[in-house]
Amino acid sequence: MGEFELIDRYFRRDGAPSPQVPLGIGDDCALLAPAPGMQLAVSSDLLVEGRHFLSTADPRRLGHKALAVNLSDLAACGARPMAFTLALALPSADEAWLAGFAQGMFALADEHGCELAGGDTTRGPLAICITVFGEVPAGATIRRNGAREGDDLWASGTLGDARLSLEAFRGTLSLPAPLFEQTRLRMEMPQPRVALGQALRGIATAAIDVSDGLLGDVGHVLRASGVGATIEAREAIALLAARVNARPGDLPDDAAQLDCVLAGGDDYELAFTAPPSAREAVLEAALNSGTAVTRIGRIEAAPGIRVLDADGRAITRRFASFDHFA
Amino acid sequence: MGEFELIDRYFRRDGAPSPQVPLGIGDDCALLAPAPGMQLAVSSDLLVEGRHFLSTADPRRLGHKALAVNLSDLAACGARPMAFTLALALPSADEAWLAGFAQGMFALADEHGCELAGGDTTRGPLAICITVFGEVPAGATIRRNGAREGDDLWASGTLGDARLSLEAFRGTLSLPAPLFEQTRLRMEMPQPRVALGQALRGIATAAIDVSDGLLGDVGHVLRASGVGATIEAREAIALLAARVNARPGDLPDDAAQLDCVLAGGDDYELAFTAPPSAREAVLEAALNSGTAVTRIGRIEAAPGIRVLDADGRAITRRFASFDHFA
Repeated sequence: MGEFELIDRYFRRDGAPSPQVPLGIGDDCALLAPAPGMQLAVSSDLLVEGRHFLSTADPRRLGHKALAVNLSDLAACGARPMAFTLALALPSADEAWLAGFAQGMFALADEHGCELAGGDTTRGPLAICITVFGEVPAGATIRRNGAREGDDLWASGTLGDARLSLEAFRGTLSLPAPLFEQTRLRMEMPQPRVALGQALRGIATAAIDVSDGLLGDVGHVLRASGVGATIEAREAIALLAARVNARPGDLPDDAAQLDCVLAGGDDYELAFTAPPSAREAVLEAALNSGTAVTRIGRIEAAPGIRVLDADGRAITRRFASFDHFA
Repeated sequence: MGEFELIDRYFRRDGAPSPQVPLGIGDDCALLAPAPGMQLAVSSDLLVEGRHFLSTADPRRLGHKALAVNLSDLAACGARPMAFTLALALPSADEAWLAGFAQGMFALADEHGCELAGGDTTRGPLAICITVFGEVPAGATIRRNGAREGDDLWASGTLGDARLSLEAFRGTLSLPAPLFEQTRLRMEMPQPRVALGQALRGIATAAIDVSDGLLGDVGHVLRASGVGATIEAREAIALLAARVNARPGDLPDDAAQLDCVLAGGDDYELAFTAPPSAREAVLEAALNSGTAVTRIGRIEAAPGIRVLDADGRAITRRFASFDHFA
């Protein structure tokens, strides 16, 4: 199977050009046509085997995740997904793998009205580079630099389960089979909070998607905004979904659970800030987008992040965030 | 050196947000603001070590080439470069390599007013994924499907030298040192024909950039346009720049030279079509953009490509184009 047959068979789909993508796969460039008054939000992520996923990963789940991590960046900015490009390096043209990968990717793309507009394929160690395009009204982008003293700090969905699953894969802990499957699904099929991101336009003062770990990612918001934060460990630890179904002894101790929540990474939830006066609006945005949100702390003038235990005492041990070159 | 320090040191540049990139590196997404009436042309290429470049490649030249191959796609569509994203997998944070790579990339980017808007860095086998954005007036994009019977077939610049250099690297032929350096420069520092592409808007009926080999790439134009072509071998072989400085015996025989020109790949020139009535306009576009152009054949109704020798006889041997999965 040649390169162009591969593209035709797995990645080209029928259908007339759409108003937002007037020219798709098959020319030197694709064309995007944002509506008048809209700006284009762009994000690019590169996933490498052994680093971002295991060689044994189900190709359907991998296709989903490769797009999900990019859609998550659009969500954090409040942008509506339009299109994406896919650049793929493959060790070989494995048809079963390609069919599964395309199926998982397009299922998520269709869910978000996001069209594959073009890309590149080459032979090489498995690597997946997706660049995603979304549209956002000029001036309405939710940025990282808008958090203000007194704002609430919120998190969407659940946090820490992906890391729990990764540690089980690594063998540093063991989980009962049902809990392992549950957490594994969180690691392999993250749900980008696209609807929530758009619903938070005009409400959230700052947002980021949690990819490297909550503390590290919130840290980016705080530095960009020139503020600090306090996080309640009790609120945070409750975000670990595995706690809901766990029996006594199923999970590592609370300190290890808190590590997963605060510094786990691979969550693809949104962390965002909003003034207390907007609490009703935040909860309504969450309801309308079908996404749970939890208030986990507050923004303060003093730089840095403080994590408080149930008694209001600062937890002083270090939580390491994920850094590809640390 | 951590991931964010790496980005700050080598890829973040000072300067206020520009009108076309109101938000650059440092948030979840970058923002692009095409001017009213403009569409956004997008292209993505993935370069992998051992496949697209050798591990010994000079990082400055590699930085140049990684962006050049993308700008070449914009050129083929007649788009004006605006911005690009860079996703980079690196085996290690090698500072000398990073400094060289950034220098080569930014030198070419500055030449074309193209801003680095965002991206991603991760550890992994060396891979470079650039996605480039250009703007083009709605309806003015030069596409592949507009070639018509009777059109001239043109090529810009020179063809085949990159392949000659690659074969010398591979040891299948040897070149005198000055010729080797000359052809190596063509392989490692291709010049995207950005100004020519824009000058050909409204003149060329179809265009493509020559990346996989002239015949293969022209074949895409012909199939998209539902036509065929005849190419004059005499005109084509003259496009090998190495012929100008070569002494007798320096180069392989004419048949091998023709192979390099017709099927060599890695040229990043433009192949384009235009009606004979537009010859003056084509030459003026070439002059205004400082790029040589050569008429190498004509578009005909019969599908396929015929290559004619100096006596007007069809050359029947097969010229293989480059295919990453063939």
